[in-house]
Amino acid sequence: MTTRPIAVLGGTGPEGFGLALRWAQAGETVIIGSRDAQRAQQAAAKIQQKIGGSAKISGAENVAACDLADMLVLTVPFSGHAALVKQLKPALRPGSIVIDATVPLAASVGGRASRTLGVWQGSAAQQTAELVPKGVAVVAAFQNVGAEMLNAEGPVDCDVIVCSDDSEAIQIVSQLAVRIAGVRALDGGKLENARILEQITALLVGLNLRHHGHGGIRITGLPCAAYISQ
Amino acid sequence: MTTRPIAVLGGTGPEGFGLALRWAQAGETVIIGSRDAQRAQQAAAKIQQKIGGSAKISGAENVAACDLADMLVLTVPFSGHAALVKQLKPALRPGSIVIDATVPLAASVGGRASRTLGVWQGSAAQQTAELVPKGVAVVAAFQNVGAEMLNAEGPVDCDVIVCSDDSEAIQIVSQLAVRIAGVRALDGGKLENARILEQITALLVGLNLRHHGHGGIRITGLPCAAYISQ
Repeated sequence: MTTRPIAVLGGTGPEGFGLALRWAQAGETVIIGSRDAQRAQQAAAKIQQKIGGSAKISGAENVAACDLADMLVLTVPFSGHAALVKQLKPALRPGSIVIDATVPLAASVGGRASRTLGVWQGSAAQQTAELVPKGVAVVAAFQNVGAEMLNAEGPVDCDVIVCSDDSEAIQIVSQLAVRIAGVRALDGGKLENARILEQITALLVGLNLRHHGHGGIRITGLPCAAYISQ
Repeated sequence: MTTRPIAVLGGTGPEGFGLALRWAQAGETVIIGSRDAQRAQQAAAKIQQKIGGSAKISGAENVAACDLADMLVLTVPFSGHAALVKQLKPALRPGSIVIDATVPLAASVGGRASRTLGVWQGSAAQQTAELVPKGVAVVAAFQNVGAEMLNAEGPVDCDVIVCSDDSEAIQIVSQLAVRIAGVRALDGGKLENARILEQITALLVGLNLRHHGHGGIRITGLPCAAYISQ
């Protein structure tokens, strides 16, 4: 069981809210971060109400949330992604893990949500890796678990592919991922593979539109992976 | 049921052989194409032996195979991809469908099979679209169904995402895809999305290595799609 508090930055949006909800349901300590502390606290209260008194959930302004946790999840739109990482930079401590769930959808610049922008570094997660201080591990994960799945009842029918250049961080984040009911975590290799995870989300957006659903992915044909949620 | 003969070009390789085997098993008329007519005939004989006398399978040199079918599947390594399409060009008739299963793995130029090359047009399938004569539909499909899955016994545990700018061709190829036991076909949208399908294969190569399997993909969270194999 994970014992480190998790700060979900941009946690008032549907994706971040869904992740915060799932982790709080699993008994994790979660801090919702937002530009606006009051909105963060309102989202936390909503989760508290949903789960009941035992939930370890609170809300804070993004940088303040970052001060309370060394496991941070970025769930902001790509348009605000680099600015948020730069803002967080002074608050990031060596040993912290930044989990990037951001997808550089073309919708960020008025294009389609079924297309991605080309990010010079290769992916949003690699952009983050370029911006964080030394000693902070960057992990790409959760791009393919849709907000609708997270906010619906019952187990999530989706694998979480976890990419990082820090293999210990892959293990820690995989353990965190499988705290979400239904999730299987898979070692996706180096952070450079984040570009594929991000593009899969754009593909899922298009599939959702054409097939009227809320798609996720499962990788078939692998023996039962190391991390399976209970 | 599909009635058009299918030419699988590069069908002596494991991916093409597996597709030819599956379609022949389903009662389709299949021509295996190869640079070497004799090798194509040997592969066809192997499938004939595997399935029994009723199989409608033959082998021919690539261009000759192309003359016998208006449904063509490209399953060659990326290093020989453009050259093959150029060679086939005079034999391609308006109304034909070229199904491109090629993945531009970096292994083509001595790099890793878990990375792709950047193709100027966006994807190998879009490169094909640039090379074929007018009136020939190009469809991207089958990149994510591994050779090991196809050549193993039993149903294939994989979705086939079908992309094309020709929506009628998407329907025809989807019907062909679900002739493979276990396959579900999904409308992947425009051909430009082929880049994502091709990159998913590179991701699967890496997952296979790290998790010791032969991975495919399933999209979850969609209502039962239009095309499901029986």
